[in-house]
Amino acid sequence: MVTLPSTTDLLERGLRGLLGTWRSFGGGEATIQPRDGVLSAKDADKLRKLFRECLEERGGEVTARARAAALGRLYLDLNEEGRRGFLAALAGDFGTDEAAVRKAMEAVQGAATPLARQKAERVLRQALAPARQRLLTQFTALPQGVKFLVDLRAEAARFAKSQPELTLLDGDLEDLFAAWFDVGFLEMQRIGWNSPAALLEKLIAYEAVHAIESWDDLRNRLDSDRRCYAFFHPRMPLEPLIFVEVALVRGLSGNVQALLDQAQPVLDPREADTAIFYSISNTQAGLRGISFGNFLIKRVVDDLSRELPNLKTFSTLSPIPGFSAWLREAIAEGLPNVVKASDREALTAALGERFSKGMLPDLLKGSDWAENAALAKALKLPLLRLCARYLLTAKSRDKPRDPVARFHLSNGAEVHRLNWLGDRSAKGFKESAGLMVNYLYKLDAIDGNHERFVRDGHIAASGEVRKLAD
Amino acid sequence: MVTLPSTTDLLERGLRGLLGTWRSFGGGEATIQPRDGVLSAKDADKLRKLFRECLEERGGEVTARARAAALGRLYLDLNEEGRRGFLAALAGDFGTDEAAVRKAMEAVQGAATPLARQKAERVLRQALAPARQRLLTQFTALPQGVKFLVDLRAEAARFAKSQPELTLLDGDLEDLFAAWFDVGFLEMQRIGWNSPAALLEKLIAYEAVHAIESWDDLRNRLDSDRRCYAFFHPRMPLEPLIFVEVALVRGLSGNVQALLDQAQPVLDPREADTAIFYSISNTQAGLRGISFGNFLIKRVVDDLSRELPNLKTFSTLSPIPGFSAWLREAIAEGLPNVVKASDREALTAALGERFSKGMLPDLLKGSDWAENAALAKALKLPLLRLCARYLLTAKSRDKPRDPVARFHLSNGAEVHRLNWLGDRSAKGFKESAGLMVNYLYKLDAIDGNHERFVRDGHIAASGEVRKLAD
Amino acid sequence: MVTLPSTTDLLERGLRGLLGTWRSFGGGEATIQPRDGVLSAKDADKLRKLFRECLEERGGEVTARARAAALGRLYLDLNEEGRRGFLAALAGDFGTDEAAVRKAMEAVQGAATPLARQKAERVLRQALAPARQRLLTQFTALPQGVKFLVDLRAEAARFAKSQPELTLLDGDLEDLFAAWFDVGFLEMQRIGWNSPAALLEKLIAYEAVHAIESWDDLRNRLDSDRRCYAFFHPRMPLEPLIFVEVALVRGLSGNVQALLDQAQPVLDPREADTAIFYSISNTQAGLRGISFGNFLIKRVVDDLSRELPNLKTFSTLSPIPGFSAWLREAIAEGLPNVVKASDREALTAALGERFSKGMLPDLLKGSDWAENAALAKALKLPLLRLCARYLLTAKSRDKPRDPVARFHLSNGAEVHRLNWLGDRSAKGFKESAGLMVNYLYKLDAIDGNHERFVRDGHIAASGEVRKLAD
Amino acid sequence: MVTLPSTTDLLERGLRGLLGTWRSFGGGEATIQPRDGVLSAKDADKLRKLFRECLEERGGEVTARARAAALGRLYLDLNEEGRRGFLAALAGDFGTDEAAVRKAMEAVQGAATPLARQKAERVLRQALAPARQRLLTQFTALPQGVKFLVDLRAEAARFAKSQPELTLLDGDLEDLFAAWFDVGFLEMQRIGWNSPAALLEKLIAYEAVHAIESWDDLRNRLDSDRRCYAFFHPRMPLEPLIFVEVALVRGLSGNVQALLDQAQPVLDPREADTAIFYSISNTQAGLRGISFGNFLIKRVVDDLSRELPNLKTFSTLSPIPGFSAWLREAIAEGLPNVVKASDREALTAALGERFSKGMLPDLLKGSDWAENAALAKALKLPLLRLCARYLLTAKSRDKPRDPVARFHLSNGAEVHRLNWLGDRSAKGFKESAGLMVNYLYKLDAIDGNHERFVRDGHIAASGEVRKLAD
Repeated sequence: MVTLPSTTDLLERGLRGLLGTWRSFGGGEATIQPRDGVLSAKDADKLRKLFRECLEERGGEVTARARAAALGRLYLDLNEEGRRGFLAALAGDFGTDEAAVRKAMEAVQGAATPLARQKAERVLRQALAPARQRLLTQFTALPQGVKFLVDLRAEAARFAKSQPELTLLDGDLEDLFAAWFDVGFLEMQRIGWNSPAALLEKLIAYEAVHAIESWDDLRNRLDSDRRCYAFFHPRMPLEPLIFVEVALVRGLSGNVQALLDQAQPVLDPREADTAIFYSISNTQAGLRGISFGNFLIKRVVDDLSRELPNLKTFSTLSPIPGFSAWLREAIAEGLPNVVKASDREALTAALGERFSKGMLPDLLKGSDWAENAALAKALKLPLLRLCARYLLTAKSRDKPRDPVARFHLSNGAEVHRLNWLGDRSAKGFKESAGLMVNYLYKLDAIDGNHERFVRDGHIAASGEVRKLAD
Repeated sequence: MVTLPSTTDLLERGLRGLLGTWRSFGGGEATIQPRDGVLSAKDADKLRKLFRECLEERGGEVTARARAAALGRLYLDLNEEGRRGFLAALAGDFGTDEAAVRKAMEAVQGAATPLARQKAERVLRQALAPARQRLLTQFTALPQGVKFLVDLRAEAARFAKSQPELTLLDGDLEDLFAAWFDVGFLEMQRIGWNSPAALLEKLIAYEAVHAIESWDDLRNRLDSDRRCYAFFHPRMPLEPLIFVEVALVRGLSGNVQALLDQAQPVLDPREADTAIFYSISNTQAGLRGISFGNFLIKRVVDDLSRELPNLKTFSTLSPIPGFSAWLREAIAEGLPNVVKASDREALTAALGERFSKGMLPDLLKGSDWAENAALAKALKLPLLRLCARYLLTAKSRDKPRDPVARFHLSNGAEVHRLNWLGDRSAKGFKESAGLMVNYLYKLDAIDGNHERFVRDGHIAASGEVRKLAD
Repeated sequence: MVTLPSTTDLLERGLRGLLGTWRSFGGGEATIQPRDGVLSAKDADKLRKLFRECLEERGGEVTARARAAALGRLYLDLNEEGRRGFLAALAGDFGTDEAAVRKAMEAVQGAATPLARQKAERVLRQALAPARQRLLTQFTALPQGVKFLVDLRAEAARFAKSQPELTLLDGDLEDLFAAWFDVGFLEMQRIGWNSPAALLEKLIAYEAVHAIESWDDLRNRLDSDRRCYAFFHPRMPLEPLIFVEVALVRGLSGNVQALLDQAQPVLDPREADTAIFYSISNTQAGLRGISFGNFLIKRVVDDLSRELPNLKTFSTLSPIPGFSAWLREAIAEGLPNVVKASDREALTAALGERFSKGMLPDLLKGSDWAENAALAKALKLPLLRLCARYLLTAKSRDKPRDPVARFHLSNGAEVHRLNWLGDRSAKGFKESAGLMVNYLYKLDAIDGNHERFVRDGHIAASGEVRKLAD
Repeated sequence: MVTLPSTTDLLERGLRGLLGTWRSFGGGEATIQPRDGVLSAKDADKLRKLFRECLEERGGEVTARARAAALGRLYLDLNEEGRRGFLAALAGDFGTDEAAVRKAMEAVQGAATPLARQKAERVLRQALAPARQRLLTQFTALPQGVKFLVDLRAEAARFAKSQPELTLLDGDLEDLFAAWFDVGFLEMQRIGWNSPAALLEKLIAYEAVHAIESWDDLRNRLDSDRRCYAFFHPRMPLEPLIFVEVALVRGLSGNVQALLDQAQPVLDPREADTAIFYSISNTQAGLRGISFGNFLIKRVVDDLSRELPNLKTFSTLSPIPGFSAWLREAIAEGLPNVVKASDREALTAALGERFSKGMLPDLLKGSDWAENAALAKALKLPLLRLCARYLLTAKSRDKPRDPVARFHLSNGAEVHRLNWLGDRSAKGFKESAGLMVNYLYKLDAIDGNHERFVRDGHIAASGEVRKLAD
């Protein structure tokens, strides 16, 4: 059996490596030796003392780094229960100095001039920085320390669901990351088959849209008519933050299996006229809320336009992950406004009582119906219409309900074309009834689309899709 | 005549280059066209409008970057008066939202539980981030944008002396830089004669302790028995933030002219037993208040220890920049507590009424006295004693009065040896009466020294220096 | 099924890439268009004309490169028959100028002084350079042109078995390669999991000793307690010429399956005392006769000694690929001198008539006997003795008959220890009856061993092995 | 005074560095210790013995490298007399094996078939390789060993003028270098102000056409509207083999002082329409006879065309180094065929008896005449005509007499425009009477020009220049 690296594998191997490196920073006397991965009450006391020493920065930098490394090693040695205790100790006692905050608030309130007020506001802002943030920042000096904090936040956020005080830590780290991971500090790099294997195996593990099946599949996705770009942080080398996969083709692609078929001949990229963004994956759970996808796509468009002036069309080939769920709900509600009488009739004609009994959603989950040519033909137009309506009208909190649509529309793309049976994978049938969509990035329309979307919620769409939705 | 690059040259050339690059980001329609480098009232209105558009982030990233580039170009085109107006416009209107701050303060005050309070504090902290900071952050996406902001702060701080509202900008940028330039994000690099000339000319311009006289002088300082290390920020390539120059020698060096003599033979570094840190220079006025000198020295010690295990002694050869000024004051006050009767007698014997008339400081400013062997001999012991006393006892705000002493002592070094006529340059006579001092970094004493210094103000010193000071 | 890259895959993909790149050099008018991969008589005439134009270097460099690219593309488009014709055309007409050679020989014979003679010899040497060599050298200016020539020689050598004139080409290229691939021009690089995947897949394809089973197997061989080094030519990037795999362990390893077991814990390399060279593979058939294995092992020993001073022992864990074949012959001949009476008795006791009927070799080819504990025990000593005798006494053309022994002994290593059932793979049983051997590289004995081996054919061996062989 | 690095400085510093590095390879027992840099007869015997040991390759690679390093160190320690002795020892005894050569020649003569003959030729070729070459090749394994051999050849060639046997060594090394420095193995790199200072100082030392006056002058030549490219050998890093300096301008440049004026504003390279090659320098005396200038210019044209599609014209601005000398000869001979009656009259009118007395050449050597506006005006047309005639008709061994013309014409350029007072430097007046010439590289004419030049000696020239020459 082929074993492919998973996120868990990578983490585990990463941690094993970390432990080795961090050991070399000393601080190995380890006053805290948790039994079976859990902290005793006494351990927790010691831990709080250690946090306090870290904050006092006693003993200079070398000591500080050793202390951070020791804390990190301790954390890695704990089991879930132990880690919850560790984080709780940190969240509990190391916030702000209430008296200082109160005093600073009074100074703001009492400021006599606007200038004095703004100065007082700065003092207050500084008083509001929790001690925890300063402590966590010390990890940045360790190799892989930034990655450690990113993973720590992912874990804290998970624990916080049942341990509310940990939302504080989650928030502290989000605020730090917002400064550290500002898009201006990230580097876009092209990834290819010449990239380090240690980086490539992360693509395999992180790919979230169309799973990478093997190293051969990966190599095919990095061939000369393919492109892959990612953002990196200078302190997290070999660790993509987000990456996008692009196919260089002739004409718009409508089927992802064809696109990924390793048997297809390779196209000379100078002959391609279209770049298809067929997968974009965020990789770091710990960076939730820090967005850079928008920037990545636009920089890639920029880079490709310069490298290959023949490219005229930039488009995605995207899943419609919320379509099946929405359809189920809509049918349960009797498809009140979402479907024309004629479609209803067409569906009834095709499905008979399976339609009236609301069995369509279950039917669509599998692939059998698609192999029945007559049935597929009968369903085609009604489903395309429903899907167009879903994409153009279904909302959640005033924004497009489909998360992928929300992302690309807010970037300034338009809903351009629906692709019948564009994704015949199990996942494709389950989530999108086999449909896919192209979001088109028209260079001279992006800014206008983006503005109208933000201002009025206007959704850009091609005439073709708009007609289907009517 | 040899022309060597100065800081001003570099800035000017840098800006010329920037303008070219930034032009390529568009936004060239330039609604504001200042006449003669000054903003009219109408321009200022337009400028505020432009700032506001930036903050609304209308039109997506490409537009945003173009807008930042246009703002940056405008700034660079202004003269001092124009720039003051530009910064005033930014400082004036783009602070916090007072109502939001008030509401957030009330929420903090009214919080029912500690957890609720901490959550409310985070909201308040976010409300206190002035809009200016968000606007300034957009420059990071431009090439050299971070360097632009660093230089902008230097300028704002200068203007602020006569334009108090600009202290706000100075503070905003300091807070941003404290996050961005955390020492964990900096890279230490060794600099050598194989480094880019574009980097090396910056050493020439930035060297603050012993001026680099020529490219030959520089090459000599980068020869195989010399080391130079610097910290860099990933977004400011070729731009050292701080750098230290080290000589690898046998035995402690006591004379900086001998150390820098290009005619001296080169030592095989594997035969050196001592590393002399003879110059450490901060380079960026715009990073005042952000400290990393402490870290640099220790990392260099670490790196050198590993590369050259024969090195046993790590020491500085440092100027004593405040000695002459202190001596003048002390003599004006009659040298009350700082000198023994025997020294006073020795000085009187050597100088006659020149001493009693208080002419010693003027005499020491030049080099003539040092060339008079008899006079120099007579002055040696009293001056060394006075200097030891200066270093060990003279204070300013409870800390050592000498800035170089303050730096190294707070790092954990000890005052180890005074060097008679160790710096025979004009500057050396003028500031330090030709004396120099070695601060010793004893590896196993650094942390202890640092702690005692921070806790009790204790100054570590060798027996020899202590005896001189008694 | 896992597909792993094979040499053929790589070549094919390489060629496909080459064709693309070379097309961009023009020369595309392609006067020769072979039908079905074969050259007609007319094509062959045109080809000879093209060769001649190349040699006249008409039209400058750009034209020359285009011509070389066109020739290369033509070659790649041919099938085996076509290629044989192509190479024959080259070997046939483009040798030396006979008249010039004759004249130059006469000048050598008639030279009046030693100096004149040597000058005449140089002229003769130049006259003896076949035109073909100059023509082939033009390929070096193409991307991957050197690799193309290396592969061309491999093919020419293969064809030469049935087409004797191609040995000329084989020899021409060998002479060129001897100059180009002088070990002084090669770079040793360490290969790790951070190396490009495009390089790593070549290790998988080229590994000749213990096949790499999967990307996981490969990663395990590049973990922190493993090392891999290779030689590269500056004009053949990502193309290892020879590589060696090393395991860092405690104590001498005797079993290769244990060494490659992915489930084994990873050792901190600083705790290792022994480096085991367990695989060394030449990769380029076209470089036969150009040797650099000797250099590689010694540079690796050098590099490792410096990186990890704790390493005290450098040894191989090697197969004994000729043992089974030799044993079969020896038994067929009645084991005349190679075995003691006592061993013969032991074998007879253990095997009964299977021994007397000469069935031992067939028995040893499989693994069944090894799983029969009693049988294995009975065979152990006699087989070890036979193997020791094989390694220390069996000769072929006055040199050790075993090719691996020949290589390491000529490098100055000693036959150090035999390992019973050290290789339980099918190949291990088939070729070596499951035995393995450690060749020890004792730093202060290498030069002496090498000299005695070269001068007297002396084989260095440990007392233990020597005793077994007696 | 500004000190700029000279070739001698660089060599000396290089050697000092070499000695240090090579010492670390051992072989330090140094059986030969020359007194005062000279070899005694006994030393010479020992030296020959050492050479012989090297050739026998006794003791493996490490020993071999140590031995080469020891030989190299010995050579560097010798003075000129000593080095002559060293090289003579090498040239004298380490040629070919006469008996083997004789036997191989007989085999060639006696070969029965063409195939047998060619095989025998290969054997002869190998027999003709002098032992010296094998010995010298061992230096390639040392750091800087290739550079050492290149410099050794330069020295041997110099000594050979008075010591004929050293021409053998010169020839041996030329043959080795022809293989090693094949243009296919060289890398073209762009050099800029971001290049290592250690490389840039070599440009200062090696620039052979228009001396680089200072580091500022150098930086100006590497500004954004300038380009510098060089060829490098992979084993001689930071050591350019040949480099060319290019100015990006609008319209053809006719004056080199204007081109190099540091006060000139910098042009946006995207606005340039013309690339002026104003200096091309070979750097390694030891590579005489190995040519790559032709390739460099064409690759640069290629690179620039791609980077800056607006460039339409590629031209040199070149000195005419042989003009003054030719003119002196022509005048001494009475200007028989080279000048029209009308020019002769014009010159007489302008100069009176200074012309009839043949004083024109002396007059032109200085710059005074050029500052006399009337005189300059009167001389302009006759001198331009003479120069055109010189370039188009003056020959030496059937090729253009002017070496720069010879180089560019053989590359396929045309004589395009003469520039009156294009070089007002002392050298410019002395060698070229202040004139300069543009050789134009017209992309679609290069190959044709080259061919006609090689075949018929045809010189391509513009109508304008041709008219002047008529």
